Amino acid sequence: MSSAENIELQEKDTDQGENLLAKLALEAELADYSPVKGCMVIRPYGYSIWEQIQSALDKMIKETGHQNAYFPLFIPESFLQKEAEHVEGFAPECAVVTYAGGKELEERLVIRPTSETIINHMFSKWIKSYRDLPVLINQWANIVRWEMRTRLFLRTTEFLWQEGHTAHATYEEAIEETKKMLQVYKTLSEEYLAIPVIDGEKTERERFAGAVKTYCIEGLMKDGKSLQMGTSHYLGQNFSKAFDTKFQDQNGQLQFVYQTSWGVSTRLIGSVVMTHHDEKGLKLPPKIAPVQIVIVPIYKESTEKDIVLKKCKEVEDILSSDFRIKTDSRDQYSPGWKFNHWELKGVPIRINLGPKDVSSNVVEIVRRDTGEKLRNIPQEGLRQYLLKLSNEIQENLFRQAKEFLLKNTFVINNEKEFVKKIESGGYLVCFWCESSTCEENIKLKTKATVRCIPFKLPVDQNQEEGYCISCNKKTNLKVLFAKAY
Amino acid sequence: MSSAENIELQEKDTDQGENLLAKLALEAELADYSPVKGCMVIRPYGYSIWEQIQSALDKMIKETGHQNAYFPLFIPESFLQKEAEHVEGFAPECAVVTYAGGKELEERLVIRPTSETIINHMFSKWIKSYRDLPVLINQWANIVRWEMRTRLFLRTTEFLWQEGHTAHATYEEAIEETKKMLQVYKTLSEEYLAIPVIDGEKTERERFAGAVKTYCIEGLMKDGKSLQMGTSHYLGQNFSKAFDTKFQDQNGQLQFVYQTSWGVSTRLIGSVVMTHHDEKGLKLPPKIAPVQIVIVPIYKESTEKDIVLKKCKEVEDILSSDFRIKTDSRDQYSPGWKFNHWELKGVPIRINLGPKDVSSNVVEIVRRDTGEKLRNIPQEGLRQYLLKLSNEIQENLFRQAKEFLLKNTFVINNEKEFVKKIESGGYLVCFWCESSTCEENIKLKTKATVRCIPFKLPVDQNQEEGYCISCNKKTNLKVLFAKAY
Repeated sequence: MSSAENIELQEKDTDQGENLLAKLALEAELADYSPVKGCMVIRPYGYSIWEQIQSALDKMIKETGHQNAYFPLFIPESFLQKEAEHVEGFAPECAVVTYAGGKELEERLVIRPTSETIINHMFSKWIKSYRDLPVLINQWANIVRWEMRTRLFLRTTEFLWQEGHTAHATYEEAIEETKKMLQVYKTLSEEYLAIPVIDGEKTERERFAGAVKTYCIEGLMKDGKSLQMGTSHYLGQNFSKAFDTKFQDQNGQLQFVYQTSWGVSTRLIGSVVMTHHDEKGLKLPPKIAPVQIVIVPIYKESTEKDIVLKKCKEVEDILSSDFRIKTDSRDQYSPGWKFNHWELKGVPIRINLGPKDVSSNVVEIVRRDTGEKLRNIPQEGLRQYLLKLSNEIQENLFRQAKEFLLKNTFVINNEKEFVKKIESGGYLVCFWCESSTCEENIKLKTKATVRCIPFKLPVDQNQEEGYCISCNKKTNLKVLFAKAY
Repeated sequence: MSSAENIELQEKDTDQGENLLAKLALEAELADYSPVKGCMVIRPYGYSIWEQIQSALDKMIKETGHQNAYFPLFIPESFLQKEAEHVEGFAPECAVVTYAGGKELEERLVIRPTSETIINHMFSKWIKSYRDLPVLINQWANIVRWEMRTRLFLRTTEFLWQEGHTAHATYEEAIEETKKMLQVYKTLSEEYLAIPVIDGEKTERERFAGAVKTYCIEGLMKDGKSLQMGTSHYLGQNFSKAFDTKFQDQNGQLQFVYQTSWGVSTRLIGSVVMTHHDEKGLKLPPKIAPVQIVIVPIYKESTEKDIVLKKCKEVEDILSSDFRIKTDSRDQYSPGWKFNHWELKGVPIRINLGPKDVSSNVVEIVRRDTGEKLRNIPQEGLRQYLLKLSNEIQENLFRQAKEFLLKNTFVINNEKEFVKKIESGGYLVCFWCESSTCEENIKLKTKATVRCIPFKLPVDQNQEEGYCISCNKKTNLKVLFAKAY
């Protein structure tokens, strides 16, 4: 399965969670290593999950008033340098085109690590008056960040994402937009990916390079580590000042626009794998499963074959307008092999159909989430039955993940307890004095960082005030610590 | 509108057609020049046309059994060199990453100018047996070709496209696939873009670098030039031999796979603009128009405003499940300004709605394709009326373009006549002896090239045999010459 070509992605790692993700992603044919350092190939089955995510999210992005557009892959190196924090954050990770069309380039071109700079350049041409605002734009694109340590889906040199970029007349509007889009991400995560998330604000240390505030959603993966699943940034006037993006307000005064940017990426596919799996393989939530129902025909004698396959076709036809459905009628594999195969691939519902089922007008159904076998389900009314079951599976996967999150979130009041508890993973709710030094100290000791200052704590911590987990200073700030990807 | 930054895209040109395209693309806000040489920004209105095209084509690609996937942007330079003709064709146009993550790279990485090489590398890992075939894959991606002379939509350094890549056990299957996908492109062009096309085979001179055969669809733009709108390549075993992509056949013998690749790009947006426009602006075919119907409220006194806007809302609500519809209720612009604005943007149907229409329960409809005003159309049954009208407009745009194509296709029998006729553009049907020298001679004299050897001639030429347009040698090959983009 693996090849020697892509050392970076296959780097020996003692991290069980990441190793499991790679194993599942390869075996279920979601992705493969590519011959290019740190880049992956997203195979059809993995890409189809991305298409389901895209389709759900694109709809929500448009319903909140945004329009898609497309900006160049290349960013002149001088653009990155216009915003001081931004260049400091991204320059070390950039891939640079220095040679093109047979010649050295006069100005080196950076492959976009994110598009704030080039989009601001265009905004400064397009925005003249308050009547042009807000500008609400989104882009689906590929991104390149030259990471040292890469992992399939979680951190690849090239990845796919959407990046929203907006410009507003006021601070209030921009903050509202930043929070609104974070809630869109939360909805996507909870209602489609069946992953409960904690939403909150990042600390200064974890903030996007160039942002005033970064909000995020964080999910707790099955190995006890936290995954940043989406971020929404309030950029203030940092980029509009750097790119001179101004508008004439209603009083005829020139003002810099207030901005936001927000994004989620193919990392979300990794989050689904890391949240929903067991020893048999993936457990995909029905809403984003490429195949929601697989029908496995079961027959021994060739006389049975025709009857069974005919019925499979009939059942598939009845269900195909409501479900992404497939009949696995391959001759070279046994039913048992097919059961394992589709369980590995995480198909939520399997229908087993044999000669007895045909004669009794029933089917056997197997739920991937619970493993439960539902026998003698009448073919009549099957569509309704499966629509209900599909919802139930979607909700059950969310419920299980939510239980896991709550069971692994702990209120911790002193460092000793912290150091011990963090070993086994999970979220630790702690008081923190807001100093980066304390955050850094904890990280050095335990590898854990502040994942966010949650809008709402996932568990009760009724104390109004407490003591910083690191320096013991009195503080009223409660945060969520965890080890992270 | 223009800036001094992008000299390449704005290069002074005496070519009227291209200048008109740029003018329309900028004014209708389909695209804008970017600060990066030869790259464009696709603005929301232009990108939405691309989304309509994508959605129609993606459906057809899937219905013909293909699955989407995603391969890396970067191609190791050594990969390109494995197929001799391929590297010769593409190397001069490549953009190259030489520096990344703060270091010079050991192997330079080419930004994909097309993905045959990297995809073949993966195919050679995935394909083992005849049971793995056919592999039918498509990718939606960005592509970079460092062109010397660039034009908005028609030829940009970076563009968006889809590229299909397939592997088959036999020559016959691969040829069938190549032709099938060309027909998908023809359907897309004729039924969605309302552009009649000539389908046929390319001459050796115009063939894709690395292909055995290249098929194409060509459309005749309003300025009399031909535009290559899509290509489908039969690659034979050229790439499978270069990348060792082999399978074990049913007899246990190792064989190289037979392959195809095929693509269309954002150039199609250019083809729509160049085919459907008049002095007022674009005329978008309803099936791909971002806005299919615009409602313009008309009122003088503020007492009328509420009544009119209420009715607009009512009409919009009735129509919004069947149409992409918008009410332009902006106060700062007059109805006349709005008429011009939406005509420039090519919206197929406009509804004018004033106080008299409200009281008589009618609307006024204006067709963009003919300019015709349809007065006193009852609000009752409007949905059905507009569905029919929309189809009529779609068909009328195609009919007009087809008439234009036929009126500008000429059977030409000698070079003198050829040289004279080609001046005013159009397709010239000629006999040709199949020699590249003759093709080159004609090009030097007239700038025209063989656009294709058509499967079926667009006009009658009943002679079975004739004389080569350049060298007068006897031949039975009839081809289509034209000036091209």
